[in-house]
Amino acid sequence: MSTAEKQTGLTITYIGGGSKGWAWGLMGDLAMEPSLSGHIKLYDINEEAAKNNAIIGNRLQQREDLPGKWTYEAAASLEQALTGTDFVIISILPGTFKEMRSDVHLPEEYGIYQSVGDTVGPGGLMRALRTIPIYAELAEQIKQHAPEAWVINYTNPMTLCVRTLYEVFPEIKAFGCCHEVFGTQKLLAHMLADMKGLEGVQRQDINVNVLGINHFTWLDQASYKDMDLMPLYAEFAKKYKEEGFDASNKGHWMNSSFASAKRIHFDLFLKYGLIAAAGDRHLAEFMPQQWYLKDPETVKAWKFGLTTIDWREQKRDELHQRAKRLVEGEEDFEIKASGEEGVRMMKAILGLEDLITNVNLPNRGQMGGLPEGAVVETNAHFSRNSVRPMLAGTLPPRINALVQRHVWNQETILQAALAKDSSAAFAAFLNDPLVASLDPDRANELFQRMLKETAAYLPGWDL
Amino acid sequence: MSTAEKQTGLTITYIGGGSKGWAWGLMGDLAMEPSLSGHIKLYDINEEAAKNNAIIGNRLQQREDLPGKWTYEAAASLEQALTGTDFVIISILPGTFKEMRSDVHLPEEYGIYQSVGDTVGPGGLMRALRTIPIYAELAEQIKQHAPEAWVINYTNPMTLCVRTLYEVFPEIKAFGCCHEVFGTQKLLAHMLADMKGLEGVQRQDINVNVLGINHFTWLDQASYKDMDLMPLYAEFAKKYKEEGFDASNKGHWMNSSFASAKRIHFDLFLKYGLIAAAGDRHLAEFMPQQWYLKDPETVKAWKFGLTTIDWREQKRDELHQRAKRLVEGEEDFEIKASGEEGVRMMKAILGLEDLITNVNLPNRGQMGGLPEGAVVETNAHFSRNSVRPMLAGTLPPRINALVQRHVWNQETILQAALAKDSSAAFAAFLNDPLVASLDPDRANELFQRMLKETAAYLPGWDL
Amino acid sequence: MSTAEKQTGLTITYIGGGSKGWAWGLMGDLAMEPSLSGHIKLYDINEEAAKNNAIIGNRLQQREDLPGKWTYEAAASLEQALTGTDFVIISILPGTFKEMRSDVHLPEEYGIYQSVGDTVGPGGLMRALRTIPIYAELAEQIKQHAPEAWVINYTNPMTLCVRTLYEVFPEIKAFGCCHEVFGTQKLLAHMLADMKGLEGVQRQDINVNVLGINHFTWLDQASYKDMDLMPLYAEFAKKYKEEGFDASNKGHWMNSSFASAKRIHFDLFLKYGLIAAAGDRHLAEFMPQQWYLKDPETVKAWKFGLTTIDWREQKRDELHQRAKRLVEGEEDFEIKASGEEGVRMMKAILGLEDLITNVNLPNRGQMGGLPEGAVVETNAHFSRNSVRPMLAGTLPPRINALVQRHVWNQETILQAALAKDSSAAFAAFLNDPLVASLDPDRANELFQRMLKETAAYLPGWDL
Amino acid sequence: MSTAEKQTGLTITYIGGGSKGWAWGLMGDLAMEPSLSGHIKLYDINEEAAKNNAIIGNRLQQREDLPGKWTYEAAASLEQALTGTDFVIISILPGTFKEMRSDVHLPEEYGIYQSVGDTVGPGGLMRALRTIPIYAELAEQIKQHAPEAWVINYTNPMTLCVRTLYEVFPEIKAFGCCHEVFGTQKLLAHMLADMKGLEGVQRQDINVNVLGINHFTWLDQASYKDMDLMPLYAEFAKKYKEEGFDASNKGHWMNSSFASAKRIHFDLFLKYGLIAAAGDRHLAEFMPQQWYLKDPETVKAWKFGLTTIDWREQKRDELHQRAKRLVEGEEDFEIKASGEEGVRMMKAILGLEDLITNVNLPNRGQMGGLPEGAVVETNAHFSRNSVRPMLAGTLPPRINALVQRHVWNQETILQAALAKDSSAAFAAFLNDPLVASLDPDRANELFQRMLKETAAYLPGWDL
Repeated sequence: MSTAEKQTGLTITYIGGGSKGWAWGLMGDLAMEPSLSGHIKLYDINEEAAKNNAIIGNRLQQREDLPGKWTYEAAASLEQALTGTDFVIISILPGTFKEMRSDVHLPEEYGIYQSVGDTVGPGGLMRALRTIPIYAELAEQIKQHAPEAWVINYTNPMTLCVRTLYEVFPEIKAFGCCHEVFGTQKLLAHMLADMKGLEGVQRQDINVNVLGINHFTWLDQASYKDMDLMPLYAEFAKKYKEEGFDASNKGHWMNSSFASAKRIHFDLFLKYGLIAAAGDRHLAEFMPQQWYLKDPETVKAWKFGLTTIDWREQKRDELHQRAKRLVEGEEDFEIKASGEEGVRMMKAILGLEDLITNVNLPNRGQMGGLPEGAVVETNAHFSRNSVRPMLAGTLPPRINALVQRHVWNQETILQAALAKDSSAAFAAFLNDPLVASLDPDRANELFQRMLKETAAYLPGWDL
Repeated sequence: MSTAEKQTGLTITYIGGGSKGWAWGLMGDLAMEPSLSGHIKLYDINEEAAKNNAIIGNRLQQREDLPGKWTYEAAASLEQALTGTDFVIISILPGTFKEMRSDVHLPEEYGIYQSVGDTVGPGGLMRALRTIPIYAELAEQIKQHAPEAWVINYTNPMTLCVRTLYEVFPEIKAFGCCHEVFGTQKLLAHMLADMKGLEGVQRQDINVNVLGINHFTWLDQASYKDMDLMPLYAEFAKKYKEEGFDASNKGHWMNSSFASAKRIHFDLFLKYGLIAAAGDRHLAEFMPQQWYLKDPETVKAWKFGLTTIDWREQKRDELHQRAKRLVEGEEDFEIKASGEEGVRMMKAILGLEDLITNVNLPNRGQMGGLPEGAVVETNAHFSRNSVRPMLAGTLPPRINALVQRHVWNQETILQAALAKDSSAAFAAFLNDPLVASLDPDRANELFQRMLKETAAYLPGWDL
Repeated sequence: MSTAEKQTGLTITYIGGGSKGWAWGLMGDLAMEPSLSGHIKLYDINEEAAKNNAIIGNRLQQREDLPGKWTYEAAASLEQALTGTDFVIISILPGTFKEMRSDVHLPEEYGIYQSVGDTVGPGGLMRALRTIPIYAELAEQIKQHAPEAWVINYTNPMTLCVRTLYEVFPEIKAFGCCHEVFGTQKLLAHMLADMKGLEGVQRQDINVNVLGINHFTWLDQASYKDMDLMPLYAEFAKKYKEEGFDASNKGHWMNSSFASAKRIHFDLFLKYGLIAAAGDRHLAEFMPQQWYLKDPETVKAWKFGLTTIDWREQKRDELHQRAKRLVEGEEDFEIKASGEEGVRMMKAILGLEDLITNVNLPNRGQMGGLPEGAVVETNAHFSRNSVRPMLAGTLPPRINALVQRHVWNQETILQAALAKDSSAAFAAFLNDPLVASLDPDRANELFQRMLKETAAYLPGWDL
Repeated sequence: MSTAEKQTGLTITYIGGGSKGWAWGLMGDLAMEPSLSGHIKLYDINEEAAKNNAIIGNRLQQREDLPGKWTYEAAASLEQALTGTDFVIISILPGTFKEMRSDVHLPEEYGIYQSVGDTVGPGGLMRALRTIPIYAELAEQIKQHAPEAWVINYTNPMTLCVRTLYEVFPEIKAFGCCHEVFGTQKLLAHMLADMKGLEGVQRQDINVNVLGINHFTWLDQASYKDMDLMPLYAEFAKKYKEEGFDASNKGHWMNSSFASAKRIHFDLFLKYGLIAAAGDRHLAEFMPQQWYLKDPETVKAWKFGLTTIDWREQKRDELHQRAKRLVEGEEDFEIKASGEEGVRMMKAILGLEDLITNVNLPNRGQMGGLPEGAVVETNAHFSRNSVRPMLAGTLPPRINALVQRHVWNQETILQAALAKDSSAAFAAFLNDPLVASLDPDRANELFQRMLKETAAYLPGWDL
């Protein structure tokens, strides 16, 4: 048959291509994929890091046992990176750990604890203010140099990254990927083992309907084959609501910044009737401050962890050392599946397979009850040159009330960032559930201090 | 000319017709209006009170100097009251002062102070749960007995009263009237005197564009003749933000439950850029608890007052005594304009004049950014058999974020009341800005106690 | 594993269960399907025919080589047929061939030729007026007796059948199936053979995005694996626009009522830029009368056929004879795949497999540019207890102009049928593209004559 | 009082300022208006004509009895005309009578008669193709030089002129004015005299709800004071449907291109149930060709007239002669009210009075059932710096079916003109009701011939 089962000669641009975790994950996934091959352009404002990753990637490709054949290059400019590309992957750190430290830890002086600090809350807002001008520029460059390329975003705050791309270049073919829903599918698979003795169910076989916004998604349908998982989850949530349930492959929640005992999942289900579909660390930040993040004791009682910047820096340093060894050939690149779906998505867009999975896209009707254009997370069908959301329906009013608040806050933040308007940004700050209990004058003091800490990334602001 | 300039033979049904303040206001307004005459059926679950008002009304009509000629009757049943009527006015107290006392004062034990307690906040929610089944029944009866009548609602919570009428009888010709916007027009007239020396401007001559939901309305345009009042208000707000501005005809804020120094108006303008268009007492309840209602000292500092139930009961007793004297003929009914627009609205609907004023109606597109069907307050054009909203536009995201939260809370409350679902009601309770700072367990305790206090008005609930 | 890969004990209700073609097709498909078994209730206003089909079905099940095990029964009443069922299949003839004769042939006296006469045009309209009251009754009965059952409609006019079901019972779980798109997928597979030498491509492997209304659907994306079929189709259409392309398995167009040489397909593509995705016989009826149906010569020149009622009656008589032989056991039931997807849809709804295919459903956002609630045909994802449309996008204005006309005509017909309003029906009649060239007075004469012919099925009309 | 009751120092830009009829009308209206004064810049591609009008205008201002004081100037460039202006009035002839002759009369060779030829039909389409690039340029210039000015359009095709302005400059403050609804209000006033003996009713006192698109508007409510005019119109239409009703101040229909006997009004009411609110000459062009415009005899039978280009040219020549005499001072400018509302609209926008009247604006929700952004004609409220549509509701499906067809045709024409795409333009041509009965090949011949005739105004087209 003359139609290709394989795509060769592809070009992929990786913006943030000096990254350690994410870029390496993609390298591994691509190396294991027999149906794709081509060239990868790594672009990073830290060009050194991009060059190192190019070395690592090219070295990896010397191994003959790997089915995916790729060459790597560090691109000298965004224009060079984008010109002629088929796919653009964006995974960057907006700012540095210095700014992230003030995002996450400065609010603690005001009694505001954040488990992640990259999506909502005072930290998410500041990060967004830094990120939006970067994404506005990326959108402009993609419009100029790669208007037909497919753009896959992994950066947080996911919603505002994707929203900015479409605001600046409405015809862009971009979407955002996040693995948080996968974690909930895995939890449901563990539930089948725990409650029904069904071992070995794969997360992909758990059928779910996803609705909401990134890191604050919900499931109103979940099934495994002919089995409705919603009533089973109701029992499961009651069984473990106090003690928590721990089957995470990330290790026990006490030992890991990323694990949790799912107590927030269960609590939200019992209060709202649907399954929340992000990790507890993310969900906690969308709810009023007193609920789950009142103080470190409360966090402990809910059995999840706060991700500190110290921890992130230590992790970064380890990766930095490892990068060095990989570049020098002192350590072998270990090939393992990243768990991300980026490669499967590319295959589907290239026409090599069909795929239904959750993505972040502007609302064109896939979600009722939320405004047109707001970036929402629902299932979509991937096929040749097409990513088509499925109608996800509408959240019940009690949950929509929570989601709308963030949707309109995010819209305010977008406007604030594009107009460099600190008054608008402060209005969004005040309305964030983690901030709303603070006295407005204290809130203003915190806001101004945080703004100053991140000022290097706010060019043109009148601070 | 053969076309009438006058409408005779009208029938008006007044539900809550035993009321003192509102019913007497209408009697006075109608007595002074030369172009209308007819018959008024007063219906009240307190039939005695309705009968007394019929006596007062008929006695008033013995005076020969009054241009408006009306006969009054106490109707024995809702069916009798509604059959054959042209207009239905609804102004009731849902429950008694006993329930209102728990609405307003029980939350104080949990640190939650409410300045009114009839719209949002824990008190507004409980009042809504009592009111919705009553309005569902009224809508059913109107559908049966007066489907073509125009229905004017004055009862709070306004939004949910009107929303329930349309939920049960979608073809109903109902709208809700509220004078809060008038107060803001008066404030703007006072501003013209204070800032420009323009005395005697009438509130009707202040042109405004109204958008939002009842008691949480906003103005994005305000003008007097060719003068744009928005920049003037910006100066005015800055001038008086600390000290407050006091020109109320209701007396000084320290001596009155209803007066305020407009400091909240000014603060909201300076934070959000539009003019809030309800009284400070109402506005305060829509914002986070810490802002204006943290404790009685905070309230005092913002120069407005908490309306206590003691005060309401004392006021009620005075009116009760006065009703007795009026019935007995020991006191003369004093005729004065109520300041309400009900009579002008009826005249316009009868084709006797045109009128543009603000009303509460389901959203059919008059407000962008809010869901179809939500009851919103905007300007409308009244003409013969027609109340037609004007496109009010869309609130800026930072304000929409605040309004949406209440819109979806109200939708949750409606569902909860119709389904008698305390779990849904509690979700709305938790998300109310006055409650959201409370620990969920404490909130639940308060919720359950309040629910018990109002249980007599929750038939069929599983409490 | 404990989760079933198989569903037993199902109940399927077949309304129109005395039918020959369609019911037999289902019997065959079910007999070949190993994963389903259960009981089938056949309901028909011709009870005799239903009984005969039950005999045929049960006789078939005596064969031991068939994997699908089913028992058949003729239901005495709709209530009995519906009570306790899992699936309701509706495939009826609204009226008889007598009415269909006037639908199709009476307009010929006025120069209006119809190739099918069951969807739009004067015949489609009259058929709709007969069908809507029947479907209103079916919806009512399903609401009463089987509110949770999934309802699959095969009857024409498809759009108005599905629209009526949802109008009367908005919570119904109904959708409409039509194989016309399959024919276009087959054409694209033939094209791959003709233009690229790719033989044996299955129609299921042709990926398409479907948008429009039943029998007037369009494709704006079509691909086979990684190959974009749109540019290829542009060449293909140019190549065969004059001569036509004939690869139908239905035989040559000259010998068959159902075959065509696809010249209308090609002409519409060249005029409108998208691939029309129904058969030429159906497409022709949606366009102005002069284009393809001016007179029998024009039809011949476009190389398609008019389906006469004589032909239908002859076909019916043959099937009648065959039914007799099957009941008597004089002929063996021949098992072959019907080409319909009903059984696969049921399997997917039962959670046994995933399926993406085109269905008719009320618009909830899956199609932009068409009104909410209008029944549209797009792809949908079938999974356990769920049929979820995919966002199909918006037709270009030039095609939307054509589709909207029919959408609003159909809405007018629905209102006319429910209100028994011949004036509304006549307005829709006048606006039909096959009628619009007629003088209104002549059109009225035709309309009145047709109405009289179908009067037996218009109870309560004032004719 | 310090607030002005009067606005002085205004600047008005008149594009098409060399025109005779319209510009003179405005000069007269302004001269009679005491509350406005200022400077008028006349811009015209025929600069000579603009200069002559400036002379006429300045001469007129020498009269001391006129309350409105204005100076006139011919602007040398669009930039000069627009810079610093408060209002832009656009009233131009797109092309010349030469093109208009082919618009109107060339289709007659194909049996297509047009009574006006400037809105829809083959003539309206060609005129639109000429006009859209001109309006795209005007929008661009207004965006550059007068972004805050209010823009009033009088040019036809009205819908596409306004649509183009908003397409190119979405923030423009533009609306379109048309007096056709006034004519229907006058008809209703005449009806009151004829049917009720009520003489002297002013058209402004006839309250109507307007919905639809320009020249194809409808009234679903009409009242005079407390009188519902809809049932009266039903009697009136029946009374005069055969003979016609003639009370036009334009003279008898037989002697005038603009008069009619309203038979089409009556016929449409009897078929569709609402009052069509444009003149018969315009309405006829929106309906199928056979109805009212089949041939000159049919036109005569319906008692309206075809406006020939000969007549227009003769009229133009008369005006030309008159202009000469006015410039030379050989004739006195006769002051009389033009009947247009432009001056009242400007006064309202300046804050000097309130006004409710019908205008053409993009749909932002004022009309249900029509797409967002389509230019629709409804009532709007004019106040200081604000033109706010009122919710007009939704047309019944039977009428919406007719209107949608034109809405989507117009959208197709817009796309065609902006993309210079003759294939799209031809699709719209084919779907026009006056063309749809033509064989597509004959239609194509006509289309190509017309396109050639108008080619001078289609720069960049590939013809």
